[in-house]
Amino acid sequence: MSLPRIAVDAMGGDEGVRVMIDGAAEARRRHDQFQFLLVGDEARIKTALDQHPNMRGASEILHCDDVVGGDEIPTQALRRAKTTSMGLAVNAVKQGDAGAAVSAGNTGALMAMSKLALRTMPGIDRPALAAVMPTLEDDDVIMLDLGANTEADARNLVQFAIMGAAYSRIILGRQPRVRLLNIGTEEIKGFDRLRDAASELQAAAPGLDFRFDGYVESDKINRGEVDVVVTDGFSGNIALKAIEGTARFVTDLLRNAFTSSLRSKIGFLVSRPATELLKHHLDPNNHNGAVFLGLNGVVVKSHGSANAAGVANAVTVAAKLLEDNLTHRITSDLAELQARRADESAGESAAAK
Amino acid sequence: MSLPRIAVDAMGGDEGVRVMIDGAAEARRRHDQFQFLLVGDEARIKTALDQHPNMRGASEILHCDDVVGGDEIPTQALRRAKTTSMGLAVNAVKQGDAGAAVSAGNTGALMAMSKLALRTMPGIDRPALAAVMPTLEDDDVIMLDLGANTEADARNLVQFAIMGAAYSRIILGRQPRVRLLNIGTEEIKGFDRLRDAASELQAAAPGLDFRFDGYVESDKINRGEVDVVVTDGFSGNIALKAIEGTARFVTDLLRNAFTSSLRSKIGFLVSRPATELLKHHLDPNNHNGAVFLGLNGVVVKSHGSANAAGVANAVTVAAKLLEDNLTHRITSDLAELQARRADESAGESAAAK
Repeated sequence: MSLPRIAVDAMGGDEGVRVMIDGAAEARRRHDQFQFLLVGDEARIKTALDQHPNMRGASEILHCDDVVGGDEIPTQALRRAKTTSMGLAVNAVKQGDAGAAVSAGNTGALMAMSKLALRTMPGIDRPALAAVMPTLEDDDVIMLDLGANTEADARNLVQFAIMGAAYSRIILGRQPRVRLLNIGTEEIKGFDRLRDAASELQAAAPGLDFRFDGYVESDKINRGEVDVVVTDGFSGNIALKAIEGTARFVTDLLRNAFTSSLRSKIGFLVSRPATELLKHHLDPNNHNGAVFLGLNGVVVKSHGSANAAGVANAVTVAAKLLEDNLTHRITSDLAELQARRADESAGESAAAK
Repeated sequence: MSLPRIAVDAMGGDEGVRVMIDGAAEARRRHDQFQFLLVGDEARIKTALDQHPNMRGASEILHCDDVVGGDEIPTQALRRAKTTSMGLAVNAVKQGDAGAAVSAGNTGALMAMSKLALRTMPGIDRPALAAVMPTLEDDDVIMLDLGANTEADARNLVQFAIMGAAYSRIILGRQPRVRLLNIGTEEIKGFDRLRDAASELQAAAPGLDFRFDGYVESDKINRGEVDVVVTDGFSGNIALKAIEGTARFVTDLLRNAFTSSLRSKIGFLVSRPATELLKHHLDPNNHNGAVFLGLNGVVVKSHGSANAAGVANAVTVAAKLLEDNLTHRITSDLAELQARRADESAGESAAAK
């Protein structure tokens, strides 16, 4: 079976058309069955494609003139869903013209357009934004929500856990370990909604395709002890940006330290393979591609400042989620959870008789 | 004028009595006017004091047998406020027997005991926990609340801003730049309570002793562009631990990279002065001492795993806040804020006539 093609919003991102096309071409060098629908200014896309003979016969161009601005308010961008490159890429997924969409444009606008065009999956109240981060071990960790929902109640958090676990299972190829982000691991910590979500997950997890391990504090996210970190969009965004900012802070300090004397400069040159290894491990391009989970279709947000390798990773994530049928996996765990709830209420009414 | 003495809970912390006494002695080597009330097991304190001739005549021992456990629930610990080393150290501040208390014990218990004994300052609804972190620049940044209040409304956040700014001004010796932690810098981001706090701070700041600069995202906390980061205890705890955890994560990766080959090991040895500089900058002992702000008295929490240098820093923070009259500074900005509010309502009723 051939993979459905991927719609690429060629106009989003800080670097413009070239980096998006270079990224798609790089993804196709890794997986030569990838097919693309490239959405945006036809002339610029053609110029960028000239560099990539491997894209011939593997891509169709959908021309449009309009582009969503980086600072545009989502509700405003939404009015131009039918004319912008972002809107048309998402719409291609809705029409079945593509299996997934990738954009490096305005996150809020992409979320709004995706929700409107693709609608939320049955059984999911709110979609969430999930991203992958490195850990001390070989496996990556997924965190969600990262800002799609400023607040989340217990029911939302349980659904985020199911969606994040489905995503993680596709990446890891094994049963993921799920935890709720909290400010302590004791049961009394945090909010009621966290305790309620924890007890529902505790009760339901044996029937689902993941393990629920309770709470995690934000200093343990990257230790390799958890595969999926579940939280509301405000806390998730705070944690994600604190992690990104501190990684940059420490590497900036390191750079300052290494250039502080001739001796340390020499040491830096000698140990360059080591520092390159660190740089590679922390390079955000290696973990590019935040996924909107919970929609009837796959939409991946590439980082605005990603390079071609980063865009290629975002495209590869989209293809992997399509291939492994992310939405089907979420549906199946949701059905399990609902069957469990139905059993419980049947049990309760039987007991009441 | 001589400085009031500092009560040290000698029994708290992972390392026990010796590190607390070594820390007090080190603080006194830096500032020979420091005087101490050492609370805990007399025999063990005396043994530890034997190593420190500079503490002779500078310390009194208050003996007790009881200790608050590290995992004890605050409400349970509270019942033994009159018999534990932590409770007695805090009580010494209440009685005027000491000017400030320092403990490395259970944070929740210390907060509960301090609130009960010292009470909240007039004009402050809730005390907050504040800590100092390094930045890329020379100046440190203060963040609060870090977990004393899981939630905070707009009024709480405004009070946290005033308390944090008073603390920062003492450390920096200049007018601090205050921001509210949010998930974006646009006005529409985040919660209503953040927008309300921002507009009150915007209106009041010209009359207060700090500058209000709007929102900050958590990836900018350590860039040196903000002196006081104000948030609720849940988000603050998430951000603080994400920062601590990531700093450890990156240095662990660096250590792994440096020991991955003979070449990188040699490079590491050559560049050791550089990596030592980094280690020094990130050493939590150099930023030890979280302060409970908003109480009628100074209480400093030393990190449970701090070494003697870390304890000395916590003691020095306590002394500095006493010397520069932290509570008076908070009172004065609160009075300014209240006068402003009174003016406004007078203006409004005059306009209504």
